[in-house]
Amino acid sequence: MSVKSLQSHQELQSFINRFDNFLFDCDGVIWHGDQLIPGVKSVLEFLRASNKRLIFVTNNATKSRQSFKAKFDRLGIQADLDEIFGSAYATALYLKRILKFPDHKKVYVIGEKGLEDELESVNVKFCGGTDPLDNEFIDLMDFSSIKTDKEVGAVMCGFDMHINYKKLAKAHRYLHENEDCHFILTNDDSTFPTDGSIFPGSGAISAPLRYAMIGKKDPIVVGKPNKPMLDCILEKHHLEPSRSCMIGDRLDTDIAFGINGGLSTLLVLTGVVTRADLSQLNAQILPEYVVSSLGDFAVLAHE
Amino acid sequence: MSVKSLQSHQELQSFINRFDNFLFDCDGVIWHGDQLIPGVKSVLEFLRASNKRLIFVTNNATKSRQSFKAKFDRLGIQADLDEIFGSAYATALYLKRILKFPDHKKVYVIGEKGLEDELESVNVKFCGGTDPLDNEFIDLMDFSSIKTDKEVGAVMCGFDMHINYKKLAKAHRYLHENEDCHFILTNDDSTFPTDGSIFPGSGAISAPLRYAMIGKKDPIVVGKPNKPMLDCILEKHHLEPSRSCMIGDRLDTDIAFGINGGLSTLLVLTGVVTRADLSQLNAQILPEYVVSSLGDFAVLAHE
Repeated sequence: MSVKSLQSHQELQSFINRFDNFLFDCDGVIWHGDQLIPGVKSVLEFLRASNKRLIFVTNNATKSRQSFKAKFDRLGIQADLDEIFGSAYATALYLKRILKFPDHKKVYVIGEKGLEDELESVNVKFCGGTDPLDNEFIDLMDFSSIKTDKEVGAVMCGFDMHINYKKLAKAHRYLHENEDCHFILTNDDSTFPTDGSIFPGSGAISAPLRYAMIGKKDPIVVGKPNKPMLDCILEKHHLEPSRSCMIGDRLDTDIAFGINGGLSTLLVLTGVVTRADLSQLNAQILPEYVVSSLGDFAVLAHE
Repeated sequence: MSVKSLQSHQELQSFINRFDNFLFDCDGVIWHGDQLIPGVKSVLEFLRASNKRLIFVTNNATKSRQSFKAKFDRLGIQADLDEIFGSAYATALYLKRILKFPDHKKVYVIGEKGLEDELESVNVKFCGGTDPLDNEFIDLMDFSSIKTDKEVGAVMCGFDMHINYKKLAKAHRYLHENEDCHFILTNDDSTFPTDGSIFPGSGAISAPLRYAMIGKKDPIVVGKPNKPMLDCILEKHHLEPSRSCMIGDRLDTDIAFGINGGLSTLLVLTGVVTRADLSQLNAQILPEYVVSSLGDFAVLAHE
C-alpha cells in the first residue's frame, strides 16, 4: 500500500470533501507544548465553517476535559467539551457506561487530579489518587497500611508523578484479592518527549502492576491505539467510519488507532515521524494520506 | 521425567552421599520469616560434620551479606560470609568482576541500603539509592531535577520501597542517553508472600524501566533462576556441577536455577509448592528429588 501525499490545492480539497468527521491528536498536530502550529487555527475554523464535525483525541491522562478546554481557549481555538476525548475522561466513561460499573463500588486510582475529576464527572466513587495518605513513602517491609478493601471494584491507572510503593501494593492487593476487580489503564505509552529528552510515560507507571499480575489478570487499555477509546467516542457521537479520518503525528498510536477503528488516516509530519520513516522497508503501520502539516490546508481557508 | 521422592533412611543417606556441595534457598527452606523450620539446624550441622560445602543463595535484594549473617547468627545457624550469596552482593560482584565495571564510573542505584553496602564492599561508586534527594516526590511535569550525568555507567535496580518517579526518570535518562550504560537487575521476582498476602517484588520495581526501554536495551538479571548468580558463585568457589545440588521451595526460581546451571535439584515442600503441583500435567519445571522438609534429613543426624 502506498501513502498518498497531499500537495496540490485540488488534492487537499478532495481530501476534505471525502469526510464528515475529523479526529485530531493534539500534541504534534495542533500544538507543540504551548505553541500553536502555524495555520492550524484557520484550518480548524475553515472545517467548522464547512460543517465538519471535529473531535480531539489525546492520550494525555493527567488533564480533565475542562483543563483541555482551558488550553484550547488560551490558544484561541474553539473546542466544545463534548468534542474532547482525553484518556482520563474516556477511561472514566468506559468504566461507567461500557463496563456498567456499579454505584456501590469504588475505583482505586493511580493518577493525577484530572483523572479524579473525570471520575467525579461520571459519578463514580474513587479512592487513592491525590489522597495525601496515598502519597507518602512507607518503611521497608512495613505492610501494615496495605489492607484488604472489598469495596474496590476497579484499579484505574494513568500517568502519576507521585507513583510509590504504597499505591502499587494497595492496587495489587485489590487486583489480587477482589474477584472481578477491573484492571483498566488510561493508556500505555512507554515514553513521552519533553524538555529535550524523553521520560517514562503512563505505560511505565502501570508496568509494575501488569508485571505482578502476569498470567492472572490483563488490563484493559483505553487510550490510542486501542479500541475502547473509539468505543467511548461512538458512545457519544454517531460516526460513519468511511466518512471519518484520524489525523495524527504518530504511527504506533494515532495511525494505528484509525486503522484499528476502520477510519481513514492522515499523518502530519510536524511531530515525531519524518517522510523518510514512511519509506522504511520495515514500516508496519502506514497512513492512507500524508501532509507536511495540518497548516497546509490553510490555503483552502484563505480563498 | 519422574520426581524421586526421598523417604527411607537409605534414600536420604544415598542422596547426601551423592553430593559434595549443597546450595540452599533460605526463605521457605531454612526459615519462614523469623522462624527456623524444625530440624534444619541439626541437618545443617550434620552436613558440615560430613565435610559438605554449604552455600546460601537468596534473591532477597535488600540485605547485605552482613545482614544475612546477622540473621543466621540470631537463629543459631553457622554461616560464613563467603557462603552467602544474596542478590545484592551477587549483582555488585557481577558488575565489578564479570562486567569489569571501570573505577571512574558510578552506578545509579534503585534499591535499599543493603545494595549500597554491597557496592561499597566491592569498591564501586554509586549515587541515587537512599540519597534523600532521590527519595522525594517531584511536581507534575517538573523535570528540572532530571539531568544528564555522563559518569553513570550502570543502572542497578533491586527491591526499593521508596521507588518514585524521580528515580525512574533519572535512571531512564541515563539508560537512554549514556552509551554502553549497563542495565542490571538484582532479580525479577514478580511478587513475594508476606503478612498473609502477596506484594509486588523486585521485578515490579524495575518493570517501568524495562517497559520504557523495550526494543532499546534489555537488562541483565542476576538472581535465580538466571545464570549470572551461578557465575558469581563460581567466581568464588570451584563447584563440580555433578557433585552439587540446589535445594529450594520454588520451581520457577530455585529449581529452574539448578537446572539452568547443570546442578542436581531437590524440592522441599515447606514453601509454596505442594506435592499435587508436581503431578500437574502442565508442570514445566520439575526437580530431580523431592522431600517434605529439609528437616527430614534430621534422622541421619540423630544416629
